[in-house]
Amino acid sequence: MNTSICLLPAAEQELRLKKLNPSVPMIFCDPANLFYLTGRIFAGYMYVSPDLKPVYYIKRPLELTGADVRYIRKPEDIAADFPDGFDRLGLELGSMPAADAMRLQKGLNVRELVNASTAIMSARSVKTQLEIKLLEDDGIKQAAAYERIPRLFQSGMTDIELQAAIEYTLRLHGCLGIFRVNGAMELHMGSVLTGENADAPSPYDFAMGGQGISPALPVGASGEEIKPGAVVMVDMNGCFNGYMTDMTRMYCNATSASGLDPKILAAWECSREICHTLAAAGLPGSEAKQLYELALEIAGRHKLTSYFMGHRQHAGFVGHGIGITVNELPVIAPRSKAVLTEGNVIALEPKFVIPGFGAIGIENTYVVTDAGMRCITPAPEEIIPLI
Amino acid sequence: MNTSICLLPAAEQELRLKKLNPSVPMIFCDPANLFYLTGRIFAGYMYVSPDLKPVYYIKRPLELTGADVRYIRKPEDIAADFPDGFDRLGLELGSMPAADAMRLQKGLNVRELVNASTAIMSARSVKTQLEIKLLEDDGIKQAAAYERIPRLFQSGMTDIELQAAIEYTLRLHGCLGIFRVNGAMELHMGSVLTGENADAPSPYDFAMGGQGISPALPVGASGEEIKPGAVVMVDMNGCFNGYMTDMTRMYCNATSASGLDPKILAAWECSREICHTLAAAGLPGSEAKQLYELALEIAGRHKLTSYFMGHRQHAGFVGHGIGITVNELPVIAPRSKAVLTEGNVIALEPKFVIPGFGAIGIENTYVVTDAGMRCITPAPEEIIPLI
Repeated sequence: MNTSICLLPAAEQELRLKKLNPSVPMIFCDPANLFYLTGRIFAGYMYVSPDLKPVYYIKRPLELTGADVRYIRKPEDIAADFPDGFDRLGLELGSMPAADAMRLQKGLNVRELVNASTAIMSARSVKTQLEIKLLEDDGIKQAAAYERIPRLFQSGMTDIELQAAIEYTLRLHGCLGIFRVNGAMELHMGSVLTGENADAPSPYDFAMGGQGISPALPVGASGEEIKPGAVVMVDMNGCFNGYMTDMTRMYCNATSASGLDPKILAAWECSREICHTLAAAGLPGSEAKQLYELALEIAGRHKLTSYFMGHRQHAGFVGHGIGITVNELPVIAPRSKAVLTEGNVIALEPKFVIPGFGAIGIENTYVVTDAGMRCITPAPEEIIPLI
Repeated sequence: MNTSICLLPAAEQELRLKKLNPSVPMIFCDPANLFYLTGRIFAGYMYVSPDLKPVYYIKRPLELTGADVRYIRKPEDIAADFPDGFDRLGLELGSMPAADAMRLQKGLNVRELVNASTAIMSARSVKTQLEIKLLEDDGIKQAAAYERIPRLFQSGMTDIELQAAIEYTLRLHGCLGIFRVNGAMELHMGSVLTGENADAPSPYDFAMGGQGISPALPVGASGEEIKPGAVVMVDMNGCFNGYMTDMTRMYCNATSASGLDPKILAAWECSREICHTLAAAGLPGSEAKQLYELALEIAGRHKLTSYFMGHRQHAGFVGHGIGITVNELPVIAPRSKAVLTEGNVIALEPKFVIPGFGAIGIENTYVVTDAGMRCITPAPEEIIPLI
């Protein structure tokens, strides 16, 4: 077992710290941020000074090694290294519980807290070459697992039974199962939607809703039978190495997609057109809100506006950054101020909910390059027959 | 679909609000707390005054109904109902991100924030009859799923392959998959440990460690083969209805447990003895720290102290409250100040890690009653042969 505190190549960590470029001293402890900055997860704190020198204050696991590793029992133990306290200290105010932030502010004698979440989410939104490689690997593995989906289907299955079978297949392909989200959103490994359930409003800010199988987790599959001739939208977990790709594909409980209702085929075609058009238009310097408007315009041209990103309830975006967590920056949304940058990794998921037919649309994950957005979820986009 | 904001019977909600007994106005938004107070999850805020009158400020889902339901777009919209602001307002400072708490403090003109997490975690630690019924249902379903484990095993399997098969079985039995935890601990549906991997230190404060299959989730099964003659510890998700039971059982890759090394059998016997002794001693009024000392004393008598709750790295408790989240109050730990109360639901998990053999021990979930702790995870405690 490699006990080194940093599992990243030294140059890679340096690159990420430079991207972070902290204007004040910062302390990180969110698992996703520690994974970004070190390639591993530990219980404790990573201090980063504006001159990019990290010091690690670790509670668990035991046995980690490195010149700047110090073991502590409680956060106040960090104060011994900073007898004068801090005029300004960055903490992850976007994810750290308020009580923890207050305890650190007091224990470390901090005059003013700065929100370090802003800096690190900004750094994380532009992926390094090594991160892009990991994301590409995810896309290949996710596509390989999806390829097995028709073989998992059996006549009479419910949405949740198919989802459980896909989960099992994903796990056997190496999926970690965990689905890291920023904020109070909850989901178990993804979403399989069919029929009327797709139109059930959910509390979460995911692209699609669904009632779920319990009020304790009101999202996604509800136990609805996948009826003969029905379509099924599959949007399942692509986390194989700590990074996640996001990919949605359509299936139909039929021997061929050609006999599906023209409304279904039109919505699916429109979703593809939005993906391909936005991918071509998404260059470094493009405005996220203009890409959203472009998607809305295409949906309007196909007379699908009232079904776009939901029907009874609408999601307010058509794409989102993705990486260690499923919802990173930038967001492709109407009021976004984001401008695309080379190295952004963005999932585009133009989806429709059409009453009587359910959820329809595809999703791909893309890397923003000088030549537009390059797709890294390499699976056929056709509606795939399950029988 | 029931659109009522409160899915609990009115008397049940009243009972829980009385247990909460807020000394100041409080606002809740943590999904687990909203589920406790309403039986459903929504994006938004539940305001509770000291006279126990709730008002719901909802962002999503649309279509919820009730006399005290108001739809908002942003948290500042709540301020319209409280033009004078608040001298003191309770927020969930133990889970709410600091930036969100600061935004609410400013937006609602709050002079002093109070930590509402303390009051609600205390209320949640003493279950109502309805909650106990749900937990009992979980235990029955979890035991039924565990019963299938020997049929899932195939010679040559790794720990993660067996875990994935158990996950699939749990899901087909209705398990929600989600594993709600307080704090920054992460796990996917539980833990299957065999061999040397059990001794790998993990960053999380779970009872057992394990290296995991990736540094991105360094806990649990590592891909280690379940060797002939080896024991396997299974500690998997018992969340079927929003509440969770916790149950660990031992299995062996052999046709009978009788030929296992005496060290394994002794540790397993010691674990059972601790469970049964603590269950008998755990009466309303018992001190949590004395129960921990009793466990330690029994481990000492069996000369297993250095393996108790880990070997290279030790967990600092032998039991924990459980309910909507896996780690609730009270904690059975050396410095705990908790005193057991009728209606506490506690998982006892005296476990050992013995080098060369792996993780050994059982776990049950109990309800604290006047007659001691009553087990609600009804599965045989024997070491079960996998072949």
